[in-house]
Amino acid sequence: MKTALNPDVESALRPLSGRAISHVFLVACGGSLSIMQGGKYFIDRHSAKLSSDLFNADEFVCRDPKRLGPDALVILCSQTGTTSETVRAAEHARGKGALTIAMTLDPVSPLAKACEFTLAYQASYTTGIAIDAADSNYAVLYMLLAGLLRITDGVDLTGPLLTSLSALQPAIYRAHQVFAGRFASFAPRFRDKSAIYALASGPAYGAAYSFSTCVLMEMQWYDSQAIHANEFFHGPFEVVDENAAFIVLVGSDETRRLSERARDFLLRFGSRDNILVLDSDELDLTAIDRRFQTYLLPLVFFDTLWKFAYRLADLRGRPMLEGRRYMKKITGY
Amino acid sequence: MKTALNPDVESALRPLSGRAISHVFLVACGGSLSIMQGGKYFIDRHSAKLSSDLFNADEFVCRDPKRLGPDALVILCSQTGTTSETVRAAEHARGKGALTIAMTLDPVSPLAKACEFTLAYQASYTTGIAIDAADSNYAVLYMLLAGLLRITDGVDLTGPLLTSLSALQPAIYRAHQVFAGRFASFAPRFRDKSAIYALASGPAYGAAYSFSTCVLMEMQWYDSQAIHANEFFHGPFEVVDENAAFIVLVGSDETRRLSERARDFLLRFGSRDNILVLDSDELDLTAIDRRFQTYLLPLVFFDTLWKFAYRLADLRGRPMLEGRRYMKKITGY
Repeated sequence: MKTALNPDVESALRPLSGRAISHVFLVACGGSLSIMQGGKYFIDRHSAKLSSDLFNADEFVCRDPKRLGPDALVILCSQTGTTSETVRAAEHARGKGALTIAMTLDPVSPLAKACEFTLAYQASYTTGIAIDAADSNYAVLYMLLAGLLRITDGVDLTGPLLTSLSALQPAIYRAHQVFAGRFASFAPRFRDKSAIYALASGPAYGAAYSFSTCVLMEMQWYDSQAIHANEFFHGPFEVVDENAAFIVLVGSDETRRLSERARDFLLRFGSRDNILVLDSDELDLTAIDRRFQTYLLPLVFFDTLWKFAYRLADLRGRPMLEGRRYMKKITGY
Repeated sequence: MKTALNPDVESALRPLSGRAISHVFLVACGGSLSIMQGGKYFIDRHSAKLSSDLFNADEFVCRDPKRLGPDALVILCSQTGTTSETVRAAEHARGKGALTIAMTLDPVSPLAKACEFTLAYQASYTTGIAIDAADSNYAVLYMLLAGLLRITDGVDLTGPLLTSLSALQPAIYRAHQVFAGRFASFAPRFRDKSAIYALASGPAYGAAYSFSTCVLMEMQWYDSQAIHANEFFHGPFEVVDENAAFIVLVGSDETRRLSERARDFLLRFGSRDNILVLDSDELDLTAIDRRFQTYLLPLVFFDTLWKFAYRLADLRGRPMLEGRRYMKKITGY
């Protein structure tokens, strides 16, 4: 049971008290960038003082926003801490006088060394070792942002966050059970699709983005896109027919009706056999504070979908991590 | 030759002088949202005073950012001015005391009525009537933002912007010539692809987004995604093989090296026959100020790609606007 913020988070928060931070840059690449969607949503909903931006690390360096300076906090994330674009982004931000905080598995990695503070987290996806989700990238990010909000806006949500994090891993295990049967019946139908879309709104968009680009495209070579649930109606929905395969994430956040509307459209014009819906209402989120269900659901969805990915991988005979052809296999690009 | 800002822009700027605007929300749906990418890039590069966010209109209403208040400017765009999500977003923003400016073809549309100021623009895509790109949505947006920047940051770029806008339409016509032969040879090869991706970075990402979702998906039912040129390397690039079809937009902005890197990868691991590259270096941008080439290129790319879309439509026997099955054809969703 977590009763206090991670000590590394407390260390990183200390210099923030004496500093008038007005802007937060959330900077990373790929899957590590996807978690920032939840972070930005949290800032947008709760802070009247902070503006924020979410940037791919290399875009951030080249775009070089004029707001980047001593009143900016730059939070960077890289699983291994070796993503060269993200390390460069940290160096760039520090050069501009911004405060930099690294999130990484490895506290002695290049990213950690490039930043003033490091928050280590744990991950099971790439290591295969079971972790407590309270120690994950999402958890560490929300602890940092809740602590920041306490300083900038005088709003203290750290208590309900810590309670919620303690209840997260059991909720994830229960979610696996809830969706296991559905995954078993959808996997054979999705196996030979050429394209599978992931659709979401609000903080869950990050989970859709990560599953679409880092799992379906990267590890299983499906054509894909993470479609925002309302943008869907302004172009993408025209691809929908009886064969179109969609995964729809319906969260409990303020944007829920956007995903519901897209889900209803898909069930009307697509085939029920090809529309895989994961709805937060089906889940037992006991002891997760209502205010944090919103932010922790992307993690529940993503962790659960990982099981679906392994089912697809088995049926397709294409292993997950080892199935890549370029990433970590070739160099010089 | 434009020598002064559009009078509607000047009217909209007037109340801004007496008001401490600190944040700009760029709000729209689909194609109208795509142009905001260039607007945000412009603000990020030039303003030390303004932060900004780009939101799908319905996401904006539900997320209801806490920063939305009297010190916020909300710029909303809808071609017809009837997009219900965008009209609702304008009403929501006004209710929070923010200053609202509508961009629309129709100055008496619901969106125009919902906002305090309206900037009318012209479009040829949906009307079929040839326009001067100096009167387009992009042009009006940049005039507004250049005027805003003059107020907030004391930086006056309106002169070079106006000169550049006057030179834009001729540059677009020349671009059509430059790419016509390439489009003719790529169209038969792309005709029967199931998926076509559009890749870009910086302000050109908006053009890729619009072409991917509002043209390839909406009007030709291709599977697609607008892939950010660096995010490409963090997942999506694994779909690349000899048959993968990509359109790569290489702009002249600060992020150019990102698109160059993705282009080089695609030409190495994909087939040259399936990688359609549009590079700003091939274009004659005479009389467009170097500082504005960056921001006007998305319009040049998009307008030019529209020609490519018509070629695909002809070969596929699927008309462009009339080929939709849901948008403006069915109701009640």
